[in-house]
Amino acid sequence: MRAFQLVGWRQPPELREVPVPEPGPGQVLVKVAGAGACHSDLHIMQAPGPLPGFTSPPFTLGHENAGWVERLGPGVTGFELGDPVIVYGSWGCGVCVNCRQGRENYCQDLGGQGPGLGGGHDGGMAEYLLVPAARHLIPLGALDPCQAAPLSDAGLTSYHAVKRSLHLLGPGSTAVVIGAGGLGQMTIQILRALSAVTTVVAVDTDAGKLETAKRMGADEALLSGDEAITRIKDMTAQQGAQLVLDMVGTDPTLRMAAQAAGMLGHLTIVGLGGGALPVGFSSLPHECSVASPYWGYLPELMEVISLAQQDKIRMLVEHFPLQRANEAYELLHDGRIQGRAVITPHA
Amino acid sequence: MRAFQLVGWRQPPELREVPVPEPGPGQVLVKVAGAGACHSDLHIMQAPGPLPGFTSPPFTLGHENAGWVERLGPGVTGFELGDPVIVYGSWGCGVCVNCRQGRENYCQDLGGQGPGLGGGHDGGMAEYLLVPAARHLIPLGALDPCQAAPLSDAGLTSYHAVKRSLHLLGPGSTAVVIGAGGLGQMTIQILRALSAVTTVVAVDTDAGKLETAKRMGADEALLSGDEAITRIKDMTAQQGAQLVLDMVGTDPTLRMAAQAAGMLGHLTIVGLGGGALPVGFSSLPHECSVASPYWGYLPELMEVISLAQQDKIRMLVEHFPLQRANEAYELLHDGRIQGRAVITPHA
Amino acid sequence: MRAFQLVGWRQPPELREVPVPEPGPGQVLVKVAGAGACHSDLHIMQAPGPLPGFTSPPFTLGHENAGWVERLGPGVTGFELGDPVIVYGSWGCGVCVNCRQGRENYCQDLGGQGPGLGGGHDGGMAEYLLVPAARHLIPLGALDPCQAAPLSDAGLTSYHAVKRSLHLLGPGSTAVVIGAGGLGQMTIQILRALSAVTTVVAVDTDAGKLETAKRMGADEALLSGDEAITRIKDMTAQQGAQLVLDMVGTDPTLRMAAQAAGMLGHLTIVGLGGGALPVGFSSLPHECSVASPYWGYLPELMEVISLAQQDKIRMLVEHFPLQRANEAYELLHDGRIQGRAVITPHA
Amino acid sequence: MRAFQLVGWRQPPELREVPVPEPGPGQVLVKVAGAGACHSDLHIMQAPGPLPGFTSPPFTLGHENAGWVERLGPGVTGFELGDPVIVYGSWGCGVCVNCRQGRENYCQDLGGQGPGLGGGHDGGMAEYLLVPAARHLIPLGALDPCQAAPLSDAGLTSYHAVKRSLHLLGPGSTAVVIGAGGLGQMTIQILRALSAVTTVVAVDTDAGKLETAKRMGADEALLSGDEAITRIKDMTAQQGAQLVLDMVGTDPTLRMAAQAAGMLGHLTIVGLGGGALPVGFSSLPHECSVASPYWGYLPELMEVISLAQQDKIRMLVEHFPLQRANEAYELLHDGRIQGRAVITPHA
Repeated sequence: MRAFQLVGWRQPPELREVPVPEPGPGQVLVKVAGAGACHSDLHIMQAPGPLPGFTSPPFTLGHENAGWVERLGPGVTGFELGDPVIVYGSWGCGVCVNCRQGRENYCQDLGGQGPGLGGGHDGGMAEYLLVPAARHLIPLGALDPCQAAPLSDAGLTSYHAVKRSLHLLGPGSTAVVIGAGGLGQMTIQILRALSAVTTVVAVDTDAGKLETAKRMGADEALLSGDEAITRIKDMTAQQGAQLVLDMVGTDPTLRMAAQAAGMLGHLTIVGLGGGALPVGFSSLPHECSVASPYWGYLPELMEVISLAQQDKIRMLVEHFPLQRANEAYELLHDGRIQGRAVITPHA
Repeated sequence: MRAFQLVGWRQPPELREVPVPEPGPGQVLVKVAGAGACHSDLHIMQAPGPLPGFTSPPFTLGHENAGWVERLGPGVTGFELGDPVIVYGSWGCGVCVNCRQGRENYCQDLGGQGPGLGGGHDGGMAEYLLVPAARHLIPLGALDPCQAAPLSDAGLTSYHAVKRSLHLLGPGSTAVVIGAGGLGQMTIQILRALSAVTTVVAVDTDAGKLETAKRMGADEALLSGDEAITRIKDMTAQQGAQLVLDMVGTDPTLRMAAQAAGMLGHLTIVGLGGGALPVGFSSLPHECSVASPYWGYLPELMEVISLAQQDKIRMLVEHFPLQRANEAYELLHDGRIQGRAVITPHA
Repeated sequence: MRAFQLVGWRQPPELREVPVPEPGPGQVLVKVAGAGACHSDLHIMQAPGPLPGFTSPPFTLGHENAGWVERLGPGVTGFELGDPVIVYGSWGCGVCVNCRQGRENYCQDLGGQGPGLGGGHDGGMAEYLLVPAARHLIPLGALDPCQAAPLSDAGLTSYHAVKRSLHLLGPGSTAVVIGAGGLGQMTIQILRALSAVTTVVAVDTDAGKLETAKRMGADEALLSGDEAITRIKDMTAQQGAQLVLDMVGTDPTLRMAAQAAGMLGHLTIVGLGGGALPVGFSSLPHECSVASPYWGYLPELMEVISLAQQDKIRMLVEHFPLQRANEAYELLHDGRIQGRAVITPHA
Repeated sequence: MRAFQLVGWRQPPELREVPVPEPGPGQVLVKVAGAGACHSDLHIMQAPGPLPGFTSPPFTLGHENAGWVERLGPGVTGFELGDPVIVYGSWGCGVCVNCRQGRENYCQDLGGQGPGLGGGHDGGMAEYLLVPAARHLIPLGALDPCQAAPLSDAGLTSYHAVKRSLHLLGPGSTAVVIGAGGLGQMTIQILRALSAVTTVVAVDTDAGKLETAKRMGADEALLSGDEAITRIKDMTAQQGAQLVLDMVGTDPTLRMAAQAAGMLGHLTIVGLGGGALPVGFSSLPHECSVASPYWGYLPELMEVISLAQQDKIRMLVEHFPLQRANEAYELLHDGRIQGRAVITPHA
């Protein structure tokens, strides 16, 4: 089969011919419908050398996948051939206390260094994907797997970031989303679905993205800058927002995030922009906490699928055949992808 | 191998010779060190006919087991032959939203009717036990599996009952345990370990058990009756207790439990005494909730093991060889077992 | 001033002339804009004798009030004359641990027997109402106090019942509201506002009320009976609902509620129908809890006001002058009030 | 009466003769038994100019007070003359959503800038203290107010810091306390009282303080440095601690705190050492949150008093008469106070 692989660190990925994997006991072979191209793949391609927790090249890229059950390894039950499934991508040991609760993104055995598929294991930018345990598969029902693939990362990461702070978003509350790109748009939809009563504010440097943010359900859309902060303070009776989600994560956006947040609030760093916020007694409002979560939980992916089935969230998807995977990443790199580029090996 | 089996409904169980099972893909064969004899087994033996979710006899009894890994089925990793393990006994489908969080006792597929092993599957009152998935095994470390077996039900059921209400047990709070038998004693130890600040009150009809309860850490031990209620009210400034755990569950103990509980409190029915409490607007203090949990969660069993490793909980155990299993149940039936009877097929 | 008073137990209330009260230190005199007529007032009027916690007649009825600040007692700050305010009606001691958190409905000093105003103190069915502490007043902003009065009981009781179970209502969840009268309609609106993702099911014996329920945001409206239960089970993959709110509270509705609920779910008894549900190990799905809350918390009333200001909840209100108070209660008694009858002494 | 006052910014405080205040409506005059001398008072004395939220000098110092009710202003009920009381010191507006829940330290009106007494209002280093609302007083029962005074800040600040993270401290968990001085010792006792199952690790640069920490209940006491981190990692199977409380708050202690914390853990900055921790995606384990709380809640102070009444927490106190207040602060400044210096104006 064909697979889009990283063949060496600091080398461009290539489309190669590799054997179709054989599912062993407990494993499942998935026929890939869609494999999302994610910004973090660009980091992998540009890494100066071996990344912690990654296997050595060559390996197949792609951690955001959905498809159809193709073959069941010995002992696997609960799935039928042809079932449309989404693949939970953060593969843990399965027996540590976190894995046993479905929190495999925080597997203690991997020490939070486990990239799952598309890094530690062959990913989904290929005709077939070998999934090491049936527990990583979630049925998609009537959802189209070509469309659904990005829910497994862009959807799940956004959902996890919102859900862990949902208790902050009661009547009269305000949630600020900094960065209204793909992840930000997903986050706005999720905020809107999970709470009709919180005021959702989008902040971005790009007026076009702010337009989209409003269509996605933002109550207010503000151009980045001091005036945005003033407006947020005015909207919140000078208290600041209960929740600020920074989808960018650079030093300037983090500074803005800190100014937008209020006492007893929470600031979540989602974007991998490489910034850091100095946190001390006087740098943030009292008891405003800061955290940087990573991906999401397996049971949460079931809830994301439920949201998509109810049509509460939707991602703009642009499809590319496997032979155009390189082009998809180039467009992504140049900021020319609207929503998400999804590779469709069987389309 | 020898196995202590129910051979027909309303028939006495028998020790029979059966083949040693062969672990298939993902399965594990456990050499049984200890299999606890539980009151609920007496219910099974006395059932007038088929029980919901149970397989047809013959089947091996025993849902409270610990032992050593004997053989690994194909594809199983993370365990070595000889590892001492405890067996989580509520075996669910593994893919519903509850199972994926380790809440297999509430498996949606089984509809809460799944008796796990010792009913739906062959149990552990035999030389070997076939465990259908490695995720049901938890390493015991330095704990003796002959001693640890009851932690998987008596320990886990008590722990789950306490932990879900732990938020109620801050400084100045009171927890009442009705019934100071084996389960009650375990519950008192767990309350003591999880909160040094709650006042623990034991209530029983038996003065000897109340003595034991005090040794286990109860602050107060009261003979059942109106005076016990008066004393609890006096201890709580007439407010009633934050948490009442009824380990008996008959109509009279439930009535007493309702009188002992306070506003915003919780009443947990753990004992299978067959009683029912009429709950309406005026039958309980305002917003005092009532629930009847069943067994416990897989990650909670890991915490129970941790408590035992720290020597915070301990169960009095009386050992019987497999050929004396019948006798153990007779003693249990007659109330002549102190703590827990554990069958040890290899002792 | 004129006041609508109960002049003796088992006697019809009367409109009487009484002195305007004088606010002492810390107290506030409120000019009554609206005083809601509630079913529980009918219970008071029909009580065979003295009710626990009530003062002796004569006393003014009415515990659901809003109006304007008329006079401030010595030492009161934070309010201006003429400010539109709603009156939190469950007046506690202010110093017990519950009162200090704004949970005055569960005042420990009153032991949950405190009827607040309209029973323990003169209520609001009069031209002026004496409020014993400024902390019971919440600013209404631009809301019309004649319209807002029912939010202090019908609104707050519904809100409290929903909010305490909100963690159960994630994507894919189902909430069932039994009884689609005034309180039920409010509850449906609140469910809709707090969670866009839960499926809201209304159940009633009256097709007209079911129509209204759908307009208020119910996804499904079912006539009471076995078919309703079958439908709820089908909608929930045979799991039952996460939350069932019984706004009626009779034996038959409670039986229905128990059938509609699922494992790990919650059944809330809101209606004062006098029924009781027998709760034991096998009468409800595993760990489905049951509770009967009473009214709500002071900070929650602030959130209710916020919801109304955002236009997320609205109550159909029928206004009556003070001299027609008797007629309003007769219509209420006969089931001929749509929404809420509100007495407007100054209209 | 005599009062120890700051008479001007950057001037040494003086003992002055001032009138005994008269309690107005709702107010209470307290005869001061004990007034704790706190490090933050040194910050006030050394401030280069006006502090935000503070009144202009002269004002009486002292925000950590207990005493006896001396006079009740008009309208105050619930207290008798002579009652021993502790004074909650973070005085808020009383009507914002935080104040209404007893969270006056986060009063929205004061924007978290309200120093309460001893800064915004005259404090308790005087013979009498005027308390503006009875809700700030909590009965002490049999506790000696000369001894109890420090519970209102040193006790409450530590308690709040622990309680908000108590859900992290189950069986097998680890809590690290950096800095084993007065506040650290209190924190260790509180950890010990609230959870018998968490492993408590104290870290300090002073071997003597580590000795004390062990007496207070620490399971392990480690000298600051890389070896301490190695030991914590080893104790936690390389996972790091669930909770790290930095009672110092300098850059080096915060760096150590970050190394000691684990995935999904929490790092609380309690000490006012002026440091800041850069928080970004890769600077802390995944989803380890950081926050800096301030003081504590009114209902929590009731719980602190309950702990002290149960003899679970105790503070070493050194008493000084009012005329030696200056000396007490000098000793405090020089690190020569064991536990807490408490001024006793009536001893």
